[in-house]
Amino acid sequence: MIARKPRYTGVIPPVVTPLTDDGDIDVGSLERLVAFLIDGGVSGLFALGSSGEVAYLTDAQRRQVLDVIIGAAAGQVPVVAGAIDTTTKRVVERARAAQEQGADAVVATAPFYVRTDDDETDRHFREIAGAIDIPLIAYDVPVAVGRKLDTARVLALAESGVLAGIKDSSGDDVGLRRLTLGAAGFPDFAVLTGHEVVVDGAMMSGVDGAVPGLANVDPHGYHALLKAGGAQDWARAKQEQDRLADLFGIVDVARRGTASASAAGLGAFKTALVLRGIIAGNAMCSPMRALDESESRSIAAILQRTGVL
Amino acid sequence: MIARKPRYTGVIPPVVTPLTDDGDIDVGSLERLVAFLIDGGVSGLFALGSSGEVAYLTDAQRRQVLDVIIGAAAGQVPVVAGAIDTTTKRVVERARAAQEQGADAVVATAPFYVRTDDDETDRHFREIAGAIDIPLIAYDVPVAVGRKLDTARVLALAESGVLAGIKDSSGDDVGLRRLTLGAAGFPDFAVLTGHEVVVDGAMMSGVDGAVPGLANVDPHGYHALLKAGGAQDWARAKQEQDRLADLFGIVDVARRGTASASAAGLGAFKTALVLRGIIAGNAMCSPMRALDESESRSIAAILQRTGVL
Amino acid sequence: MIARKPRYTGVIPPVVTPLTDDGDIDVGSLERLVAFLIDGGVSGLFALGSSGEVAYLTDAQRRQVLDVIIGAAAGQVPVVAGAIDTTTKRVVERARAAQEQGADAVVATAPFYVRTDDDETDRHFREIAGAIDIPLIAYDVPVAVGRKLDTARVLALAESGVLAGIKDSSGDDVGLRRLTLGAAGFPDFAVLTGHEVVVDGAMMSGVDGAVPGLANVDPHGYHALLKAGGAQDWARAKQEQDRLADLFGIVDVARRGTASASAAGLGAFKTALVLRGIIAGNAMCSPMRALDESESRSIAAILQRTGVL
Amino acid sequence: MIARKPRYTGVIPPVVTPLTDDGDIDVGSLERLVAFLIDGGVSGLFALGSSGEVAYLTDAQRRQVLDVIIGAAAGQVPVVAGAIDTTTKRVVERARAAQEQGADAVVATAPFYVRTDDDETDRHFREIAGAIDIPLIAYDVPVAVGRKLDTARVLALAESGVLAGIKDSSGDDVGLRRLTLGAAGFPDFAVLTGHEVVVDGAMMSGVDGAVPGLANVDPHGYHALLKAGGAQDWARAKQEQDRLADLFGIVDVARRGTASASAAGLGAFKTALVLRGIIAGNAMCSPMRALDESESRSIAAILQRTGVL
Repeated sequence: MIARKPRYTGVIPPVVTPLTDDGDIDVGSLERLVAFLIDGGVSGLFALGSSGEVAYLTDAQRRQVLDVIIGAAAGQVPVVAGAIDTTTKRVVERARAAQEQGADAVVATAPFYVRTDDDETDRHFREIAGAIDIPLIAYDVPVAVGRKLDTARVLALAESGVLAGIKDSSGDDVGLRRLTLGAAGFPDFAVLTGHEVVVDGAMMSGVDGAVPGLANVDPHGYHALLKAGGAQDWARAKQEQDRLADLFGIVDVARRGTASASAAGLGAFKTALVLRGIIAGNAMCSPMRALDESESRSIAAILQRTGVL
Repeated sequence: MIARKPRYTGVIPPVVTPLTDDGDIDVGSLERLVAFLIDGGVSGLFALGSSGEVAYLTDAQRRQVLDVIIGAAAGQVPVVAGAIDTTTKRVVERARAAQEQGADAVVATAPFYVRTDDDETDRHFREIAGAIDIPLIAYDVPVAVGRKLDTARVLALAESGVLAGIKDSSGDDVGLRRLTLGAAGFPDFAVLTGHEVVVDGAMMSGVDGAVPGLANVDPHGYHALLKAGGAQDWARAKQEQDRLADLFGIVDVARRGTASASAAGLGAFKTALVLRGIIAGNAMCSPMRALDESESRSIAAILQRTGVL
Repeated sequence: MIARKPRYTGVIPPVVTPLTDDGDIDVGSLERLVAFLIDGGVSGLFALGSSGEVAYLTDAQRRQVLDVIIGAAAGQVPVVAGAIDTTTKRVVERARAAQEQGADAVVATAPFYVRTDDDETDRHFREIAGAIDIPLIAYDVPVAVGRKLDTARVLALAESGVLAGIKDSSGDDVGLRRLTLGAAGFPDFAVLTGHEVVVDGAMMSGVDGAVPGLANVDPHGYHALLKAGGAQDWARAKQEQDRLADLFGIVDVARRGTASASAAGLGAFKTALVLRGIIAGNAMCSPMRALDESESRSIAAILQRTGVL
Repeated sequence: MIARKPRYTGVIPPVVTPLTDDGDIDVGSLERLVAFLIDGGVSGLFALGSSGEVAYLTDAQRRQVLDVIIGAAAGQVPVVAGAIDTTTKRVVERARAAQEQGADAVVATAPFYVRTDDDETDRHFREIAGAIDIPLIAYDVPVAVGRKLDTARVLALAESGVLAGIKDSSGDDVGLRRLTLGAAGFPDFAVLTGHEVVVDGAMMSGVDGAVPGLANVDPHGYHALLKAGGAQDWARAKQEQDRLADLFGIVDVARRGTASASAAGLGAFKTALVLRGIIAGNAMCSPMRALDESESRSIAAILQRTGVL
């Protein structure tokens, strides 16, 4: 078997987007967050992902966020940029803009909002890849897009060099195993899990890296987990994963029925970062609400229990 | 009971977007289509809807399409513009742009791609309505958005004047009946069905108008149907609806497994318009494919059978 | 066009199953209910349907319920019996038992609990029909089965005489229209809607009859509605349907989050029948809870508002 | 932390049901299969599960299958019996029958076919457990039931002793991790994964055992995998899992569009067992079709590639 050496490995957190109370990008906080993540040992940064509230930001804000992250990263680690939009031409526009801003790679989903199929998704990725000079990573996120990528199609796109990797947030662990087994022959293709609490199992399945939103809160922990997994020290990996799975309980803190899943999850990441002193506030993009004082106290308790605070 | 007089009634077709073979907007064809629709008796035009391939057009193309339609309509009928995007701030930007371009009203969905809830959807519509000076119409389209609007919430937004109407493409006829019954007390609020083949039943349920994609192909037919329903001439309405339901068979002509639902449906509308001599070509936005010669012949046969050709 | 004369037309209520507080079948109440329904002008009775809590009854209870209904009907109207089970052999056993007990026809769904497809569903219906000497009616209920029947397949089974009719509870009004249009050439095949609040529109679409659970509560109302529709008196049909749609509000009376959809809906039917003096109690099968005093008062108010009490 | 010693650990295969060409239970083949599995090192047998075609067998066949398996097991390993039916009373009847036949424990799902909720599911499990004297294991299988069990509810039922374990076939690896973390305090409660290709990761998540359908085909392989995982020999576990994941490719051999997922998967298990010489034929319950000669050859190739043949 060919040794695999994909370009994207390790922890690549989807960077959250700190906001001021007026809803503007909090540039200082974002810069501090980037520095914190790099100090935490991440091997790349994923700008404009779901955890970055990409779907809530205006085009101008997206440009600003990418500029700030690329500037703050200053070449220490590659910056991968989400080009999230409904269909091909629109994604191509965003992908080209990201390339011009200096992104090292682009992440795109299948078409959404429209009724599409596997053939169209195939053409979609081929057309995007053909329009840019930097690598393209597929983003499999059925909870947002409404469809799962077909494993055989993804592998064919990997083989033909259209895709340089995939971020798998599908929650389909069987599909993920098939993907890593199938990708064994494509040394440059990176399989990245998008989940928080099963990274140890995903590494045993053969993934090359992880893109967990929770890594915003504890990059050092995920770095330790990935390092242990890479060294086949599974007992250590499991121990770290169990602690991080406990930490992930912060996304359930928002009172039931009063916050959407996005508001509860991303709001918890921001609140934890405020509690850690990295960002200034936990404001959220409209129409989401921010977590309140009481919820913040519950999060603080979890951070203390798991050794983060 | 208060007599209802909503601003939006009758046939308001979601105008398809003719393209050149290079993928540009075919302005001449679009102008002819608008003239054809107005000649067909439509009472309004819905620009930048799903049938208009809004999710496939670039921002520049969207602006151009809206300009052409408003220009060609020349005030003869109102033009309603889709402001289709993932979340609040992004929709507000598009809604304001549509207002500046001269649209008479804006159509917006609930947030999509993100994990939202009913409270956020409520704030979403309130914030959009607060940001523009023209009426806001909600678009209930679970097949695209992944969620159905809550009927009680819609009625509350109607009562408070946030919403001027709803385009219901949910396929939930029970919900539609509850909506029309509930809206009886809100005289200005328009309930519009987005479906093609049950407009007679929907009128019996009390809808004020229809936004059927198929009205691009046969506006005169839908006008006759709505007129008959308005006059309580249900036998005539049913007869016309049965003919149009037969005509709607054109959306099933594309060979199974070779075209997505969007490509098959919108491609059929365009192909029929080519056959009727209204637009020049049936090119589709990437990644959809256009219908071919063989499929076009099948569509021609249906048009002849239903008296359209 | 051939004049259609299906065997099953008019109102065919899915008879609810009154229970004693001990969870046994309340035979006296069930007999009174059957008499009440026949007095209300129904043209048939559907025993062992979803509204009859078929999925909650033991085999012995199912046999008893069917015996009581057939006995009480005493040949005045045909009795159609649900043969509800997961797959072919199991349904065949139930269908044969129903035939032996004297049922006039059998109602069966596609396979459920298992991962099936359209080919298997086709064989399923053919095998059931081949095993009995009475007519077979398909039951399209995606909310229970998880899949919708394919319209073209249903029509082919109608043409070949396998199916004598369909009860459509799919909520897909477009599919229903295609079904009635397609069934026009099959004079014996009955298209029955399973919904409560859009029967007028469904009649305009060409259905032959209705199987509304709410007809347990107001059979006279549904009889009037079907009669008006049959006479093309659509104004009268719409008026009656609007009243019944208002009455259907009883299914929303159970306090949110404290009752399942089945408990809220079927519980409301039973409670209304208690209030009307037809059955003795509103007990429900385990694990459903019965509606309480407060909810009963809300239902009484709706019954009064709609002229039922 | 309390040391966990659940009663159910290791490999507990859901035993497939060999049939004669006439559709009867092939008793000799079933007895040989049980002997083969026990020789393979399994620690229990799951009779009447999805892989055993429980939803396709008549009641008489179910009784026969359970009798044969209990008889053939002869006390060497415990036999867990599926009590699969739509709602509480029906499941209780089956659970009591299984107990009388000598089953060591009962496996039951949430209510299905009906519209239920978490409260009803809770009462459902409590009532079943209260009606039998042997342990109750919950079966979380959304693909069949249409709903996922709520993790917090399951843990509460574990704490109160209602549930002795769970078979998790939900495919939700995040939920599984939360379950194992939450179950850490309940020493008797067994967490079993129902999946085939991520057992190594699931063991790292802390599961106590596995119920993989593929273990019918290669029980020795799964035994080696579980043993390696139990000994924290993760490199060995991963190696064995990768081989078994490759073997699992047999479920994709059936020609696309010609077999349902159940027919393709269960048919592949039976065909492989025929090829291994354990059972006599690969007949399937109606309406499923059996795999054919060509498909059998493809399966043989996979068995050879993975060292099974």
